Amino acid sequence: LAFDMSSTVEFEGVESALKKSLQGKDYDEVRRILYGRAYPELPIPEEAKVRANDGNFELQAYEVTAQSEQLRPPRKVRVAVIQNSIASPTTAPVDEQKKALHAKVGAMIEAAALAGANIVCLQETWMMPFAFCTRERLPWTEFAESAEHGPTTKFLSQLAAKYGIVIINPILERDEAKDDVIWNAAVVISHTGKVLGKSRKNHIPRVGDFNESNYYMESTLGHPVFQTIFGKIAINICYGRHHPQNWMMYGLNGAEIIFNPSATTGGLSEPLWGIEARNAAIANHCFTAAINRVGTEVFPNEFTSGNGLPAHRDFGHFYGSSYIAAPDGSRTPGLSRAKDGVLIAEIDLNLCRQTKDSWGFRMTNRLDLYAKSFEKAAHPDYQPDIRKEC
Amino acid sequence: LAFDMSSTVEFEGVESALKKSLQGKDYDEVRRILYGRAYPELPIPEEAKVRANDGNFELQAYEVTAQSEQLRPPRKVRVAVIQNSIASPTTAPVDEQKKALHAKVGAMIEAAALAGANIVCLQETWMMPFAFCTRERLPWTEFAESAEHGPTTKFLSQLAAKYGIVIINPILERDEAKDDVIWNAAVVISHTGKVLGKSRKNHIPRVGDFNESNYYMESTLGHPVFQTIFGKIAINICYGRHHPQNWMMYGLNGAEIIFNPSATTGGLSEPLWGIEARNAAIANHCFTAAINRVGTEVFPNEFTSGNGLPAHRDFGHFYGSSYIAAPDGSRTPGLSRAKDGVLIAEIDLNLCRQTKDSWGFRMTNRLDLYAKSFEKAAHPDYQPDIRKEC
Repeated sequence: LAFDMSSTVEFEGVESALKKSLQGKDYDEVRRILYGRAYPELPIPEEAKVRANDGNFELQAYEVTAQSEQLRPPRKVRVAVIQNSIASPTTAPVDEQKKALHAKVGAMIEAAALAGANIVCLQETWMMPFAFCTRERLPWTEFAESAEHGPTTKFLSQLAAKYGIVIINPILERDEAKDDVIWNAAVVISHTGKVLGKSRKNHIPRVGDFNESNYYMESTLGHPVFQTIFGKIAINICYGRHHPQNWMMYGLNGAEIIFNPSATTGGLSEPLWGIEARNAAIANHCFTAAINRVGTEVFPNEFTSGNGLPAHRDFGHFYGSSYIAAPDGSRTPGLSRAKDGVLIAEIDLNLCRQTKDSWGFRMTNRLDLYAKSFEKAAHPDYQPDIRKEC
Repeated sequence: LAFDMSSTVEFEGVESALKKSLQGKDYDEVRRILYGRAYPELPIPEEAKVRANDGNFELQAYEVTAQSEQLRPPRKVRVAVIQNSIASPTTAPVDEQKKALHAKVGAMIEAAALAGANIVCLQETWMMPFAFCTRERLPWTEFAESAEHGPTTKFLSQLAAKYGIVIINPILERDEAKDDVIWNAAVVISHTGKVLGKSRKNHIPRVGDFNESNYYMESTLGHPVFQTIFGKIAINICYGRHHPQNWMMYGLNGAEIIFNPSATTGGLSEPLWGIEARNAAIANHCFTAAINRVGTEVFPNEFTSGNGLPAHRDFGHFYGSSYIAAPDGSRTPGLSRAKDGVLIAEIDLNLCRQTKDSWGFRMTNRLDLYAKSFEKAAHPDYQPDIRKEC
């Protein structure tokens, strides 16, 4: 019982292994081909380092520059993503678990703010264990709360106002105003502490232990983009990263940064993790941030996984590895596979339009063709265009 | 003048550098996270090896298995992709250049056939240097030929019939039947040697030295899929790989393998190369094959690149690195960055439906939502959904 993280922590990550073993030109070329141009590290203030040390979490910071322009000044924004393990055993009282997470992640947000972060995004349903694997309702559904008035939004609103930062707060939402149904949502809290709005998960997985379709349905809110004082942002929650058309609609609505708060485990998705959010940054001339939780969560009652294996009590290892990708195809190193962490990138949003002008994927996207083609293909009587030998 | 390959060949590739420097668990984990599950190598017949040795090209072969099913036997297909440098100086007579390419690549196709290949795909406009950088017409437009009756299609039809293989023949097409205009096309030649049909390039680049929009327009043929005796295939030519919606329409039309014959150079696209075709395989539950030409091509007259640098006569280094990606997110190693090569994968097409059933991206794609959203977004008066603080 209880929770255990160390047992599945065996390999720290690709970047550290490469750094350890490759030298000189080999390292430079492998790094360039795998990650794009190298980013300089940002200096981290001492007080932020102390917090990281006290809280036992990683703190990395990089600078992603753009070219200078004559008419537009640089639009530099410090984006922070946070990955965390849970803070108490899953058997602890709900309120205790949530408060312990508030305390732990609150300290990480403060470290990010002290390091100059302007926008902070947390992982999917960060305020609870990822308990959907159990298919049990109580006590897990008790973690759900109002997007606008719940305790987690209130807690983060105070931090947002205190530091003048935007916080993206992905929660399990209880829709108190409408039939008390549950959603997987992300609340955008502005730098004033006010709720700017919310986004909900557009695509719900039905794979492995991601039994989320037992708890909530697909969003009906479309693809909202939020204009903050630090830039236009959107949130593509977790499984939506497998759907390029989902990223694209956020892009078409003008998002300059699309966050992907996630919860995903090793055996299933790890070789996909470096691909999908980065592809979206390239295809949409914007920044993306892929955020995964970390650690192994153990639940009180055993459950099976539809894979013929015996019942067990854990969901496997959430491998962290959060990263930020730029429109020019470059990306930051990932956070650890095993440890809590804060990753900061100072990005220049001018890079979005510069890359759009240079690569031209938006200009050449033939949207009208695809609108028509998708419409036809969505009809139940659609006949795929298949050519055969006469 | 003439052409020079060796000068830009300085780094063989990521895979060989990793193999050389990483050991044991570090190697296994880095390989797994970067490339997915490991593929066993396929034995290569001696006579194919001799051809590769004589022709001085790489020959790699891997096996990509699927689970066994009760009702469907495995549908194993050997797919081969070929990357090649040009075979003569660009100053040689057009006919001589083309014949030299026929001879060289013909030998590579024969090696692939001797190694059991069923479907062979060549690189974009493989029968000529990638001369669009020059913006000159003659002599380069003289390379264009009829898709159905041109000398290159005839040459490959004989090879296809001789070995009973399907060959995808990406050419510069002269549309003799319709106003003699030029297209960037791929001709599908069936195992009988007959022309099964053709596909044309849906998205045309306007970036770097890719001045192709001066020569031909976007395809009006939509997203045809070709039913061959070895499976349903489609061709997404070059720059179309940057457009996820383009891959998706081929997928929606039932493609089990989507080939991406390309021509792309190092400084511009190399960090994107491993991302895009692989993302498409994941998102569409199908196999994809990314094929790039290799070498540096030097042209008789100098040209500029719109980047402030002095006039020059080469397009930069085409970095090869062709690879095949599977629907489960795994991929083969890449061919060399510097050398001609044939890459073969014996794939089991049953993996497409198995992954579709498992991951469920097609089931959860909400196509109707995106058809409507794209239609709205394509209107000139579309108002993006942007939420602001009141």
